[in-house]
Amino acid sequence: MISNHAFGERVMRLVDDLARHTDGPGLTRLYLSPAHRATAEVVRGLMEGAGLRAHIDAVGNVVGRHGPETGPVLLIGSHIDSVVDAGRFDGPLGVVAGLVALEALAREGADLPFAVELLAFGDEENVRFPTNLSTSYAVAGRYDPAWLEGRDADGVSVRDALQAFGADPAGVAGLGRDPRDVVGYLEVHIEQGPVLEAENRPVGVVSGIVGITRLRCHVVGEAGHAGTVPMAMRRDALAAAAEMIGAVERIGARRTDTVATVGVARPQPGAVNVIAARVDFTVDARAPDDAVRAAMMTDLEAECRAIAERRGVGFGIEPTMESPATPMDPGLTAALESAMAASGLAPRRLVSGAGHDAVAMAALGPTAMLFVRCLGGVSHNPAESITAEDADVAVRVLLEAIKAIGRARQPS
Amino acid sequence: MISNHAFGERVMRLVDDLARHTDGPGLTRLYLSPAHRATAEVVRGLMEGAGLRAHIDAVGNVVGRHGPETGPVLLIGSHIDSVVDAGRFDGPLGVVAGLVALEALAREGADLPFAVELLAFGDEENVRFPTNLSTSYAVAGRYDPAWLEGRDADGVSVRDALQAFGADPAGVAGLGRDPRDVVGYLEVHIEQGPVLEAENRPVGVVSGIVGITRLRCHVVGEAGHAGTVPMAMRRDALAAAAEMIGAVERIGARRTDTVATVGVARPQPGAVNVIAARVDFTVDARAPDDAVRAAMMTDLEAECRAIAERRGVGFGIEPTMESPATPMDPGLTAALESAMAASGLAPRRLVSGAGHDAVAMAALGPTAMLFVRCLGGVSHNPAESITAEDADVAVRVLLEAIKAIGRARQPS
Repeated sequence: MISNHAFGERVMRLVDDLARHTDGPGLTRLYLSPAHRATAEVVRGLMEGAGLRAHIDAVGNVVGRHGPETGPVLLIGSHIDSVVDAGRFDGPLGVVAGLVALEALAREGADLPFAVELLAFGDEENVRFPTNLSTSYAVAGRYDPAWLEGRDADGVSVRDALQAFGADPAGVAGLGRDPRDVVGYLEVHIEQGPVLEAENRPVGVVSGIVGITRLRCHVVGEAGHAGTVPMAMRRDALAAAAEMIGAVERIGARRTDTVATVGVARPQPGAVNVIAARVDFTVDARAPDDAVRAAMMTDLEAECRAIAERRGVGFGIEPTMESPATPMDPGLTAALESAMAASGLAPRRLVSGAGHDAVAMAALGPTAMLFVRCLGGVSHNPAESITAEDADVAVRVLLEAIKAIGRARQPS
Repeated sequence: MISNHAFGERVMRLVDDLARHTDGPGLTRLYLSPAHRATAEVVRGLMEGAGLRAHIDAVGNVVGRHGPETGPVLLIGSHIDSVVDAGRFDGPLGVVAGLVALEALAREGADLPFAVELLAFGDEENVRFPTNLSTSYAVAGRYDPAWLEGRDADGVSVRDALQAFGADPAGVAGLGRDPRDVVGYLEVHIEQGPVLEAENRPVGVVSGIVGITRLRCHVVGEAGHAGTVPMAMRRDALAAAAEMIGAVERIGARRTDTVATVGVARPQPGAVNVIAARVDFTVDARAPDDAVRAAMMTDLEAECRAIAERRGVGFGIEPTMESPATPMDPGLTAALESAMAASGLAPRRLVSGAGHDAVAMAALGPTAMLFVRCLGGVSHNPAESITAEDADVAVRVLLEAIKAIGRARQPS
């Protein structure tokens, strides 16, 4: 480690620059919005400044290429869209870290056996349209043409928004890369969680991206007077739901790499002196292994049904989302770990509990991710923060990993 | 027991008659409303028909007296106001049962050593004004003049509503009876709970009316991403509140005569993929003994604080209501029980988990209540229902108790 954090300082400056482009409130940059267009233009200019051949593609991605026009290519990317009133780092950090690494590669005249391409995706946050990761799925060759008809809250379709943005709905289908050309995909992203900070590590390597099951559950008991129905004669939907919430928590905590959360619970009628007749609650359960997640769901349903049976209340369960886990590529993951080792950092693999463009890109080729420590684990919030020192480490590890992947592919 | 339920049939017919007077929706008769006035007039007519000297008093009560104008008096009553979209029996049953009993006393020419007065109160349901039991407290001599300034949702004060009703705000202070004249107060009321039905009993004697504590509690945790914060690093306000709801239920169930209910729980921000930052919930705890209730509150606060401490969440508690228990008078309660025995019914004492005019009247003199079985324990609902057979038993027991109280006071 050196005391000069030139990479990190440049990353912080560029992230700040990008954060100036917003549709408001705060930093808000939804897919295909004016601020997204402005940011894409700035990113294209930065890519050109780094010597990349850059363009904005048919689905709104900014694409910049270093090295040969054809043949094998290592992809690096993240997204430049944001949630409403976002932080500055969720997405832009990965784009800017990739840019700074490519600037260094160009300066060094590094000799790599593949082109390197930087991608600034535009539809990661799933806020404006019903689509999710549509721009990275386009690059992965998995764009569903029906997505073009998805509409935002104002009734604007993705198709019309692409046209207004200056992109090309007709060209989206042609964006998919040939998997045979793809060396892999690397993404740097803030952790959006507290683990690295708690362990005092600047970065960590992602072992896999969790699969997610979301459920809508309901408990049906019997309303009653809070004074006149003895405890033993009650069928209290809220007391039953509370016990189920405890079961969900225990099931999530059985392993260190799984989580399960009840974030919504609505008792009805919801009066101080009325025993609840019904409670609707949600479950969000995540695991890096789909078989583990399936077992969690089996346990969860069995425990809730047992609670319902014992209490004489009804119980219903309805899945609302099901998203499989995405394992990371062992070779690329090892490359990131050896790059960490080269910077004197002990290896640390952690699960990504949130989705990323890497989920879509894993459908195209080998994929790996590097997480960067963020203050308090806070994300999707203007308080989102990382240090220049950690950004510096991230660029250094990324740069070293690119070179290591190159060395590994050199004909020996 | 006889097979002719003449008392019960008359009770059912009169209850049906009174139910025709409503301001809507359904049966809705709020204190001092036009429907309340119309019902009071009908009740006064019924009292006069039974040979009582009847009037509507300064606070809107209908008062009918049998026997001497002065001297000792046994009071019998209940209320004729209702909740919104009410059942027919909650309140009117007690007034009508008293009326039918007094009709029988008059027919029989029973010789009693006291007058008997029937009271139809008007402000038991605490719906329209911030007042609670104001009309029975007026008779008990405990009317707070500040209550006259309480206002309904339209800004109408009790004072103005009394004037519009044709009553007399200036006369309210003079309604209090001299406790030395009061032999006691008896009230017949539907149970509003499921106990008598479960035990297949037509009636039961109330041992006491519970005291009530209501609390507003809040749990303050930390919001977080449902995917990225490991279970062990969470401060989940909803998981903590769920555990507290379980503790409240256990504390309520430790004795057969106590209850504790959480009817409201509001997690924030309340999103499927966000760990709850805060939950506000209510507690309603009731016990027939104030020391028991105080001990419940101590345990409840200690258990919730221990849960909060173990989970690293904040916990706050704020009392919103505190109402002491009202024991019933042993002598009058025994009179009701011996009257039950005279009808071949085994004694059964049960706690009243809801408040009644008897709470106010117990401040004036010896008080007892007779509960009547109701279908499914349902009340405050158009489905509220009792049988003519049970109404018959109630009138018979009330009539016999009045005579027994008279016999006990006869100079021997």
